[in-house]
Amino acid sequence: MQPTSPTIQRWALTLSYDGSLFFGWQKQADGLPTVQTALEQALGKIACHPVCVTVAGRTDTGVHATAQVVHFDTTAIRSPQAWIRGVNANLPRGIAVLTAQTVASDFHARFDAFGRRYRYLLQSAPVRSPLLIGRAGWTHHRLDTVKMKQAAALLVGEHDFSSFRAAQCQAKSPVKTIYRARISGNPEWISLDLHGNAFLHHMVRNIMGALVYVGSGRLSVAEFSGLIEAKSRLKAPPTFMPDGLYLTGVDYPPEYGIAAVSLPEWLKICGNYG
Amino acid sequence: MQPTSPTIQRWALTLSYDGSLFFGWQKQADGLPTVQTALEQALGKIACHPVCVTVAGRTDTGVHATAQVVHFDTTAIRSPQAWIRGVNANLPRGIAVLTAQTVASDFHARFDAFGRRYRYLLQSAPVRSPLLIGRAGWTHHRLDTVKMKQAAALLVGEHDFSSFRAAQCQAKSPVKTIYRARISGNPEWISLDLHGNAFLHHMVRNIMGALVYVGSGRLSVAEFSGLIEAKSRLKAPPTFMPDGLYLTGVDYPPEYGIAAVSLPEWLKICGNYG
Repeated sequence: MQPTSPTIQRWALTLSYDGSLFFGWQKQADGLPTVQTALEQALGKIACHPVCVTVAGRTDTGVHATAQVVHFDTTAIRSPQAWIRGVNANLPRGIAVLTAQTVASDFHARFDAFGRRYRYLLQSAPVRSPLLIGRAGWTHHRLDTVKMKQAAALLVGEHDFSSFRAAQCQAKSPVKTIYRARISGNPEWISLDLHGNAFLHHMVRNIMGALVYVGSGRLSVAEFSGLIEAKSRLKAPPTFMPDGLYLTGVDYPPEYGIAAVSLPEWLKICGNYG
Repeated sequence: MQPTSPTIQRWALTLSYDGSLFFGWQKQADGLPTVQTALEQALGKIACHPVCVTVAGRTDTGVHATAQVVHFDTTAIRSPQAWIRGVNANLPRGIAVLTAQTVASDFHARFDAFGRRYRYLLQSAPVRSPLLIGRAGWTHHRLDTVKMKQAAALLVGEHDFSSFRAAQCQAKSPVKTIYRARISGNPEWISLDLHGNAFLHHMVRNIMGALVYVGSGRLSVAEFSGLIEAKSRLKAPPTFMPDGLYLTGVDYPPEYGIAAVSLPEWLKICGNYG
């Protein structure tokens, strides 16, 4: 009789992390602390074998997640609680597994994701809150949110977003679809919510940089429109700081039944997320 | 002709700081970083002479402030903007001067304060949010907020708070008056607001520890009442973590005209502060 080969199970996890404590998502050859490195090490301890994870959306240094999604395969038979509490006990400060579930073997955290949601939280005040450094962006400029709303609305739809694409972006195409772009909040606390099929490298931070220029009167709404049409970073305002950027959700076909994670209450400063 | 002695002006500042970055308020002989040390150094650079500050309420390691108040005397002639922007430029990450104003020479940040307000922000969830470590307390217990409200209400009035007093407390009397004690929020995010004339060392964290016991069913409301009456720490639940504790305001007679600083929006998770 031949030995039976072990059964492989595919798991999906949702995670939250404080991006200010890591050099981005992706594993780095030089051993710098990244979210992926920490997560794979902690999963490996629970699985008792090396684990490789596939992520829905890589995030940069300083960028947070309230509902990142990954999948991985394992021969280990473990309960969801083991993948949550056991892994969390092995993770460094600043990362937590929120949910764990088995998924169909064809589920793919990246390729099945048809939407990603980001929130950028921005403080506009003469003095930056020392309690939200690394949690919110900041500008001392007073911002005209009416103009920012008008500019943000121009992002909706399918566009070539080359004007908001980092030089080191590896995406095959600069054409992405934004389903929703919304500015909300009061004069001091402003949120940008972007919901799209996919995002280019630094795209949200580059859009935020341009919207802050619009809000502070350094760029008109017409110039913002021209910036999108220019399909070039040459005349675009600089990339905004990562501090206020959160990956807040990933959309999957409902048949996979990926657990929904709602926006944390404290991130709803500027009204509920719709 | 004799030289004229320089005019001394008294200034009051409001400050916010991230307590997780400092070893408490008070200057330490061993040179550990404290809020007072950092502030006096930055003020000294702007004043061009050594500055000593007097604070409304000393805070412990890990305890934050959104509206701390200090006063100091100086012979330097500077604008309010110099005491705000100039000092902020010389402060380390995690402290900011919010307002600066000249005050009557008899104003005393500590002795004129007739009330202090604290908010404790607590997350009750199976997994602690990695984004709010150092910003909110956490318990995995589900909490009965109705019972917590009943217990908190027993704190209002003049009481001997020895049951919530740290061994190292230097206050002359354990008798303090609580004007208001309120539990608010939803099952996941809970706030305790305490408004009183003065607080003993660790008093808010000790009260929070006991209220979490009440919420999780480890202490009945009657037992909480007995705990107050016992005037002893011996049977009291342990001191709760400092992460979620914020000094949110200090009350002064209106004639001093000390600037009011409202609660930051993101701290209003559990409803507005009344």
